[in-house]
Amino acid sequence: MSAVTPTLVSEHACFGGTQSFWKHPSEACGGEMRFSVYTPPQAKHGKVPVLYYLAGLTCTEETFAIKGGAQRVAAELGLMLVAPDTSPRGAGIPGEDADWDFGTGAGFYLDATQEPWKARYRMGTYITQELPGIIGAHFPARMDREGIFGHSMGGHGALVTALRNPGRYKSVSAFAPIGAPIRSPWGKKAFGGYLGPDEATWREYDATELLKAGRRVPALLVDQGTKDKFLPDQLHPHFLKEACEAAGQPLTLRMQEGYDHGYYFVSTFMEDHLRHHGTALNAG
Amino acid sequence: MSAVTPTLVSEHACFGGTQSFWKHPSEACGGEMRFSVYTPPQAKHGKVPVLYYLAGLTCTEETFAIKGGAQRVAAELGLMLVAPDTSPRGAGIPGEDADWDFGTGAGFYLDATQEPWKARYRMGTYITQELPGIIGAHFPARMDREGIFGHSMGGHGALVTALRNPGRYKSVSAFAPIGAPIRSPWGKKAFGGYLGPDEATWREYDATELLKAGRRVPALLVDQGTKDKFLPDQLHPHFLKEACEAAGQPLTLRMQEGYDHGYYFVSTFMEDHLRHHGTALNAG
Repeated sequence: MSAVTPTLVSEHACFGGTQSFWKHPSEACGGEMRFSVYTPPQAKHGKVPVLYYLAGLTCTEETFAIKGGAQRVAAELGLMLVAPDTSPRGAGIPGEDADWDFGTGAGFYLDATQEPWKARYRMGTYITQELPGIIGAHFPARMDREGIFGHSMGGHGALVTALRNPGRYKSVSAFAPIGAPIRSPWGKKAFGGYLGPDEATWREYDATELLKAGRRVPALLVDQGTKDKFLPDQLHPHFLKEACEAAGQPLTLRMQEGYDHGYYFVSTFMEDHLRHHGTALNAG
Repeated sequence: MSAVTPTLVSEHACFGGTQSFWKHPSEACGGEMRFSVYTPPQAKHGKVPVLYYLAGLTCTEETFAIKGGAQRVAAELGLMLVAPDTSPRGAGIPGEDADWDFGTGAGFYLDATQEPWKARYRMGTYITQELPGIIGAHFPARMDREGIFGHSMGGHGALVTALRNPGRYKSVSAFAPIGAPIRSPWGKKAFGGYLGPDEATWREYDATELLKAGRRVPALLVDQGTKDKFLPDQLHPHFLKEACEAAGQPLTLRMQEGYDHGYYFVSTFMEDHLRHHGTALNAG
C-alpha cells in the first residue's frame, strides 16, 4: 500500500510545536479520511516517537486535540500524537447514520467482513497500515517507536490493536476501555453488524479473549472512573483484570473515585498516560 | 439584587475538584443565563479566591471549560474559575442571530442603552453584580479576592471591567484582547448597536480610552499571537501598549511568535496567566 500525500486542512502553533489536521483519499476505507497530528518542538531537530490515540463513539479526529489536554506533556517528552477519525464518513451505506453506537463515528477499529460494511469499514487496516504508512512517509516520526492508547471504544481499539500485533507497539494504555466487548451491548451490536453471527470471529477483536488466547503486550495502564455511567454494563474492567491476572500480563488498573466517562476524566489522567508511554518510547 | 439559587445542569470530577455547569433566571438579563464553575480541591476545606474568565465571540460558558486546559493549574493554586456565557440567549430580539459578531454570542460585556437591546443585553451588570452575587451566596468563594481575565471580546471585557471598577479586581490579564474597540470594526459595530451613535459613550467601554482617562488596574499580562488573523484590523495591542506607557500602567505584552487566535494559543499560555493571577489572589 503506497502512502498517499495528505492535504493540510489547518495548523496551529501549540506549546512550541504544531497541532495540524489532515485529509486524504484512503485506500483501506475507500473514501476520504481525516486525522490530526501534534508535532512536538523536538521534531525540528530529528525524528520522534509516535503515539496513536483512538477516540470513542461519536468522536472525530478533533476530539483528542481539543479536549485531551495532551500537547503540553507531549511537547515536554518529545512525542508525536496521531489521532484518526473514528470511522469512514459519508460512505452512503443505508443506515450508517441511524445510530450513535454503530456506523458513522463507531468503526470499532476493526475490518468489517459483512455486507454492506466490508468495502468501507476497514479501520483495522487503516490504523495499523495505511495511516502509519502516511505518518512514516510525510512526518518526522520514528516508526520503530510506536505506542497506542485510547478512550472507551478507542480504549478497546488500542488494547486489541496491540494484542493483535505482538511486538509492534512499545507502550499501550487505555481510559475506560470496552474491556470485554463480546459481553457488552455495544460490542455485540457492532461485532454482529460488522463481523456477522459467528462469535468465534468476535473473539479476535476482544481484549479479554485475546489475552486468554495467549496474546501479550507491554505493561498496561488502565484508568476507570467509578461514576462512569457505562461501567456497569459496557466496560467490564474486571474481566480484563481477571484475564491479565490469569495470563501474567502486567496491568495497572486504577479505579478513579468519582470520575465519569468524559474528557474531564480523560484530561485529568492524561499526563500519567503520556509519561507511561514516554518512558517506554524514549528508552534506550 | 438578591442572589437566586442556580440549578445544576451537570457536574464532573476533574483534577481532584469539580467542573460544574449551572443555569438560573437572570434579573439583569431578563431571561435564563448559564455559567460554569471549576471548584478546586482546596474548596473542600475553606473558601478560595475566584477568577472570572470571559470568552470571545460565538463562545459559551462551556468553551473555557472544554478548551482552556485551566483546571490542572487552578487545582494546584486553589483558584475557583467562573465562566459566564457571552450573551443572553433566545431573547427574541429581531436580528439577534443574524451576525456572529453582534447579538447572540456577542454581548461585549456592557449594558446596552439602545432599543431593542437595552432590556436584555446587560452583561456589564450581570458579570459585575448578579453573577458575583450568586457565586458569593452559593459557592465556597472568597469574594474579597476576585481576579478577571478573558480572550478576544472577553479580553476586552476583562480589561474594561477591571478599569471601570477600580480596586475591585486583584489581578487582570487577557489573551488577544480587543485593545481599542472604538477603532476596530467589531467594536464600532457593537458599540454603535448597543450604545448608539454618541461616541463619547463608547469610550467608557474602551480599555485604551479608559487608561487615557486615568483609570488604572494591577499589573497587566497580555499575550498576543503574531499569526492571529485578527491582529491587523481588530485587536490593536499597540494602542493599548502606548496608553499603558503614557499612563505608567504596568503591562507585560508578549508577542507570541507564530501563534494564532484560537484555543491552541490560549491553552499554551494558560498556565502563565493562572500563575499571574494566583500570585496576586493568594498573596497575604
